[in-house]
Formats: sequence, structure tokens, C-alpha cells
Amino acid sequence: MLTKQELEEFSAEANLLYLDHISIDCVVFGFHEGQMKVLMLKSKNEAGWQLPGGFVKKEEPIDVAATRILATRTGIDEIFLKQFHVFGDADRNRQHNEMYNKVVAPEKNFFSHRFISIGYYALVDFIDVNPTPDAFSELCTWRDLDDLPPFLLDHEQIFKTALDTLRLQLNYQPIGYNLMPKEFTMPELQKLYETILGTKLDRRNFQRRMLGFGILNKLEATRKGGAHKAPYLYSFDLDNYQAALKEGLKSGW
Amino acid sequence: MLTKQELEEFSAEANLLYLDHISIDCVVFGFHEGQMKVLMLKSKNEAGWQLPGGFVKKEEPIDVAATRILATRTGIDEIFLKQFHVFGDADRNRQHNEMYNKVVAPEKNFFSHRFISIGYYALVDFIDVNPTPDAFSELCTWRDLDDLPPFLLDHEQIFKTALDTLRLQLNYQPIGYNLMPKEFTMPELQKLYETILGTKLDRRNFQRRMLGFGILNKLEATRKGGAHKAPYLYSFDLDNYQAALKEGLKSGW
Repeated sequence: MLTKQELEEFSAEANLLYLDHISIDCVVFGFHEGQMKVLMLKSKNEAGWQLPGGFVKKEEPIDVAATRILATRTGIDEIFLKQFHVFGDADRNRQHNEMYNKVVAPEKNFFSHRFISIGYYALVDFIDVNPTPDAFSELCTWRDLDDLPPFLLDHEQIFKTALDTLRLQLNYQPIGYNLMPKEFTMPELQKLYETILGTKLDRRNFQRRMLGFGILNKLEATRKGGAHKAPYLYSFDLDNYQAALKEGLKSGW
Repeated sequence: MLTKQELEEFSAEANLLYLDHISIDCVVFGFHEGQMKVLMLKSKNEAGWQLPGGFVKKEEPIDVAATRILATRTGIDEIFLKQFHVFGDADRNRQHNEMYNKVVAPEKNFFSHRFISIGYYALVDFIDVNPTPDAFSELCTWRDLDDLPPFLLDHEQIFKTALDTLRLQLNYQPIGYNLMPKEFTMPELQKLYETILGTKLDRRNFQRRMLGFGILNKLEATRKGGAHKAPYLYSFDLDNYQAALKEGLKSGW
């Protein structure tokens, strides 16, 4: 647990720096060896884990705040971040209001009131990230998507909403540029989709549909070294990929 | 322009009732006789129009606040509302900060600080709505999507983001239940899609794709009275429609 002095110092600074009532929480997805992972922090103060998060400076655009918060937790300055939902139940952080009000006088306590939290998700290259805990955490680390620890507050709902959003977006937006290595095989890309969707996909349908989107370049080289016929390598066609991010995939209306 | 006294009274009440720094703005789409319309308010204080909006009470969930705000502007208590984006540039409402700070002392003025605005869109049956202005507006009325008046603040960006969101969502979610009459012809439904997308669609592709989603019931009756062969009537299959809203349309992965 943080000491009374540490909490008072944090609150005094936060009251000066940040907007009240508004927080940011981030669901950071990383992909590594066929496994989807989520970046999480183990609390110093309670038995449970949180998503990386923080607050908005008084004159800071919210997207800049989200980027700053994630840079501090991951060491990556330019991260692909997307707002996906705002969590605004009246008592979503009551557990923390009460816990911190016992330590810091409520009129000084930055956590004494309600916070509406803006959810962002990020897709990152797993190997680029240097997980770094914040002042309230003893550990910041990757956790497997299918073996997540107990969440604090409404962070499980925030995580699930991010995953549902990602699953729906597979139907109309490209994905993978920030998660896959520069060159990859079709089975490797299919594994990413299967991991996000939590289900097996048909190999031929996947390949036909994916090629139909026109966002892949088939490379001359093949992946050598396996027992099977060497599979073709692909890379993303960045121009078409960016256009599809903006306008939706070609299968649209 | 509101008087100094009116503004001071509004501010005094708002400071007691509402969270600071957080507002809600709504893009209300209605469909009537093949024309998409947007609900807008003409300001009393400036030359320009705004979207319906308001604030969040100190102990009110944000979705409840959005529903309350729209009920006040439309007379409809249960409205299909969907959060789509948060607008959080640092100076998005500076124009109003400065205007109202000239009238009400900044330390008393509810509008003296920055507001982060949560955007909701609504799809409503045009004929159910009773447009009602708020204290800052002289008029609340429907405007045609292709002939919108000049917007105040960042409301044009809010409107455009809502329309872009709706267009993207046509690719993976059903639409129309809240916009169409109970029974409709395929050309009438196609007209709705064309209006949202701002483009013509191929009649046969539209019908094939729409029927493939499995969200329509073909009725026994036909639409009588036209010069052409009487077209079939359809209604939405609500169970399948709701499932597709949640899980995405069948054309998905």
C-alpha cells in the first residue's frame, strides 16, 4: 500500500495538473508466437489487476493524453491507439473513492469523486514494449488473453468491450499491420484472426476473402525450413491498407 | 441573446447539478419520404446552429444523461442511442468560454472551462419527434442532410464523425428498424441505404445481399396502387435483427 504521505503528494500534484472527473484506460493487445496478450498492472494497494490508465492534463487534447500515458507504460512514443467507448456509470470507481478517502482527507483527495473513463485500445508489436509499472502498481506485464487475472473496478468490462469492438471491426477494417512482423505467411495471419475471434476459420475461405480485400502483397520469397511445402510470404500494401482503414474493406456496400 | 441574469441563473444551477468538464452532444437522424434529416437548434446568442446537447448530473450514468437530454428535445422517452466518439480537443469550446465570460464572472460561469463532449447518435422515426428548443436556442427543427446550416463550435466535426460511423456500420450491423415504417418495400429500404451512403446502389446486389443477412421477413401482402407490378412488402425479423446488432451481420468471418 502507498503511504499516506505518498497519496497526499500524488493528490496535491494531480489536483493541479489534471481535469477532474475524467480518466483514460487503455487495452493494449500484443501478439506473440500465436498467442494474444494484454498489458496489465498488478496493484500495490489491493488484490487485483488494472489496465494501464491515467488522467488528462488541464490543457491537453485527450488523444495526446492517451498517447502520453501509454508511452510511459510501454516506452513506445508512437502507438496505434483507437478510442472505442466511454465508461460512465455513476459508481464505477466508488471502491477507490472509499479506499483512498480513508487515507487522504476527501477535500484534498483527487480520487474522492466520480471518474468517467475514456477507453482506448492499442495494437502493438509485442517485442517493442518495455512494460513499466506506475506509482500504484508493483508490476506491469503481459498476460495471456485466455488466462487473465482478476480485474479491479470495471476494468473487466472495459477489456471485454475492447475485445468485442476488435472482433466486430474485423468485418470491415483491416488489422495486423501493428501486430504482425513485416513479412508473414497466410497461416500466420489466419492465426491472428483466429486468436482475436476465439474460433477456428476455414483455411480456403480465409485466404480467398483476405486476398479479395486487396491489402496484401504476395512476395517472391517463400518461408523456408519447414517440413511442408514452403508457404508464400506476404506483406501489407500500406496504401490500400490505410485506405481500407478509412473507408472500410472492399466487401462493403 | 440571453440576459446577464438568465445566464447567471443558469450557471448557478448548472454548477450545483452537473459534472464540470463533461458534456453530451447528440446527432439525431430521421428519415422521411426518401430524405435523411438531422435535428438541429438555432442559437439565440450567435449566428449558427448546434446539435442537441447537455450535461451529466453529478450522480447520473452517462447513458441516462443522453436519454434524458434527447427526451427533452424530442418528447421521446425511449430512444435508440449509441455512443460513437468523444471530442476532446483542448480548445473545442473556447469560443463559448470567451463569449460567456464577458457576461458572467468567470469564477461563477459554468461555461468558463473546457468541456470534453461525448457524442451519441440516435436513429428515430421522424413522425414521433416533437422538436423542442432549449434555453439557448430560438428554434429546434429538422434540417435536410444535404442542406445543413452553418455549425457552431466543433459540431460539424461531430456530425461528420457520426455519419462516417453510420456508413461504416452498414457493413456489419443491421439498420432501419428505428427509421423505417413497420412494413416497407425493398426499394424503400434501398433508398435508406443510398441516403446514408450518399451514393446509388445496384438494385439486384442490394436485394441479394440484404436477403442473405436473414433479418427480413417477406410478407404475403404487396404494396398496391403503383403503376408498376406491386412490389413485395417486408418487415424486420426482430430476433435475427437483434442478434445481428450484437454479433455482426452474417457476411462476417
